[in-house]
Amino acid sequence: MYASPIAPAEYEARARAVREGLAERKLDALLVSNGPNLRYLTGFTGDNANLLITPAAGALLFTDPRFEIQAAREVSCAVKIAPGPLVMEVAEAIRRQAVKRIGFEPARMTYDAYQGLVPRLPMNAEALGVRGWIEGLRMVKSPAELALIRRAVEISSQAFEQVAAKVRVGMKESVLAAELEFRMRRLGAEKPSFETIVAAGERSALPHAQPTAERLCEGGLVVVDMGAFHQGYASDMTRMLFVGKPGAKVKRAYRAVLEAQLAAIDAVKAGRATAAVDRAARRVLAGYGLERAFVHSTGHGLGLEIHEPPRLGRRDKRRLEAGMSITIEPGVYLEGWGGIRIEDTVVVTKNGCEVLTPTSKELRVV
Amino acid sequence: MYASPIAPAEYEARARAVREGLAERKLDALLVSNGPNLRYLTGFTGDNANLLITPAAGALLFTDPRFEIQAAREVSCAVKIAPGPLVMEVAEAIRRQAVKRIGFEPARMTYDAYQGLVPRLPMNAEALGVRGWIEGLRMVKSPAELALIRRAVEISSQAFEQVAAKVRVGMKESVLAAELEFRMRRLGAEKPSFETIVAAGERSALPHAQPTAERLCEGGLVVVDMGAFHQGYASDMTRMLFVGKPGAKVKRAYRAVLEAQLAAIDAVKAGRATAAVDRAARRVLAGYGLERAFVHSTGHGLGLEIHEPPRLGRRDKRRLEAGMSITIEPGVYLEGWGGIRIEDTVVVTKNGCEVLTPTSKELRVV
Repeated sequence: MYASPIAPAEYEARARAVREGLAERKLDALLVSNGPNLRYLTGFTGDNANLLITPAAGALLFTDPRFEIQAAREVSCAVKIAPGPLVMEVAEAIRRQAVKRIGFEPARMTYDAYQGLVPRLPMNAEALGVRGWIEGLRMVKSPAELALIRRAVEISSQAFEQVAAKVRVGMKESVLAAELEFRMRRLGAEKPSFETIVAAGERSALPHAQPTAERLCEGGLVVVDMGAFHQGYASDMTRMLFVGKPGAKVKRAYRAVLEAQLAAIDAVKAGRATAAVDRAARRVLAGYGLERAFVHSTGHGLGLEIHEPPRLGRRDKRRLEAGMSITIEPGVYLEGWGGIRIEDTVVVTKNGCEVLTPTSKELRVV
Repeated sequence: MYASPIAPAEYEARARAVREGLAERKLDALLVSNGPNLRYLTGFTGDNANLLITPAAGALLFTDPRFEIQAAREVSCAVKIAPGPLVMEVAEAIRRQAVKRIGFEPARMTYDAYQGLVPRLPMNAEALGVRGWIEGLRMVKSPAELALIRRAVEISSQAFEQVAAKVRVGMKESVLAAELEFRMRRLGAEKPSFETIVAAGERSALPHAQPTAERLCEGGLVVVDMGAFHQGYASDMTRMLFVGKPGAKVKRAYRAVLEAQLAAIDAVKAGRATAAVDRAARRVLAGYGLERAFVHSTGHGLGLEIHEPPRLGRRDKRRLEAGMSITIEPGVYLEGWGGIRIEDTVVVTKNGCEVLTPTSKELRVV
């Protein structure tokens, strides 16, 4: 039984695109060792594998006997089950096919793995670093991928609705996080797409806070940043709760972030520079005197990984393309006071974007 | 407020041991880039950091501004907040201290990170691969670490008890996994220590099965392999359920695995070869004609990572030492029929071992 969420023909087309792109890059082969790249090209989800793509033989997946049954279910390309270290079999295939210029992934391969490969290559062969090729292909999602991301977004939004209705003063951050993750699981997620953030009060000012045993207190902001992996694809969303009655300062800062987020969403469009989207958010916050409180970039791509290209920051050079799935998530962080962030998952379209996240952006008062 | 689960003095002693061990290894400095090693030496849990240990300056942690507050709460050694790439600041510290022979972690550092470091080193300095040093120190746990592991084990066992009582025919694997993870969270775990395995029927024969929407059927084995991270430390346990009334073949195979597991536990003792423990399990299974169905090693160390040295396999050369925390988990896997595995977390002692896992090893009939 074939068990990947995407049709074999789509994986085959992706691998074929790489095969056909080798010559242009002056390569005779590409060795893929990074998990998400390998999954993108084959559908394989096991955690010990290499993929060799050559013009003559196409895609050849190497894995060990623990994953034999799994590979048969998930993968339509040729599979070689290696009893020993994969590098031996990879080098043997390279020798047999007499390929000379072999691309590898230096940003993902350890120094030791590189040192294990090179001495095993034929004398006249060389390993050449290839950066960002497959990551570049992964940026624009296919309709099948977008359907999976759409479902991942629904899962996290539904889980948020189910849990938000039950939030009470005195609840622990960790309990709220546990409930959110449980609900996502029950709705069909494999796991959270990152460690769920629930940070109350002053802790909301930490952009990467992990949930603690702290309890939600009267008069405090609570940031909830959550996402699900569904069939390998990620969602990402941030919403704010307020325990009690928000004062003028909270309301003003919330309005600033919300306006910044809406302005950034308005700026999203195929052809637009990523930095321009970031600028749109920053401009609004500057109008509130909050530009220095926005300490990260406006968003990032997401798909098989929770963070993947493109990045939407001040110094990023890329332009958006239709079919990219990205987050839009400006925030302000004031040490000793708290933080506010609002985040959606959106898909870039020809004329703008579609916001996938259906959750209301009202500050939710508990 | 100091927020690490282990006292500053213990982290300082660990870093001092490395500092004092440099000379013996003919090194002037050690650059630690691997997260669990860095956490072991400093308590820091942020995910972008480097640690440089030198005889003159001791431990110096580098991280970026996002983690400034967190580093102040978690770490007692010197901290340098680097606005740009960490490698620049690391190289600067190396230059300032005029150290020449710098150890790095080639099994954990990417080829690109290595290529980023080397050209920034002073002309007369060199980077030398150091393998397994910190991992070696981490093998024997301190009383404070064992207390955390003990609690992680209690959490997974309590979660199992709470959920096992509710298991029914027709429940989905993924629902059972979600319930287990939710309970672990509620009992204080940060997250599962690995992706919870719930595999029913023939799927129990896949040693690395992920939970699916399959439902528990009458007459089938169910493998449950689960663990928790508690304050950074892992537990690991496997128990078997049977839906309905087990037949003679299931009972016999279960008895074989249970006897193998008990024999391996009996063999654990400080000074004993890891391979001898593995052999003890294999010998029992051979008596049942099941030695070929046992396709992995008998166990592995666990602590800050779910899999860490020592490994207890056929070809492993290490000897056990008092204070090591390891799993004992023989299993048999018969394609088209199913699999059985029983796993505990144990601590090696001078005269034997202490089994931390309190959960009954009876085949649990649902």
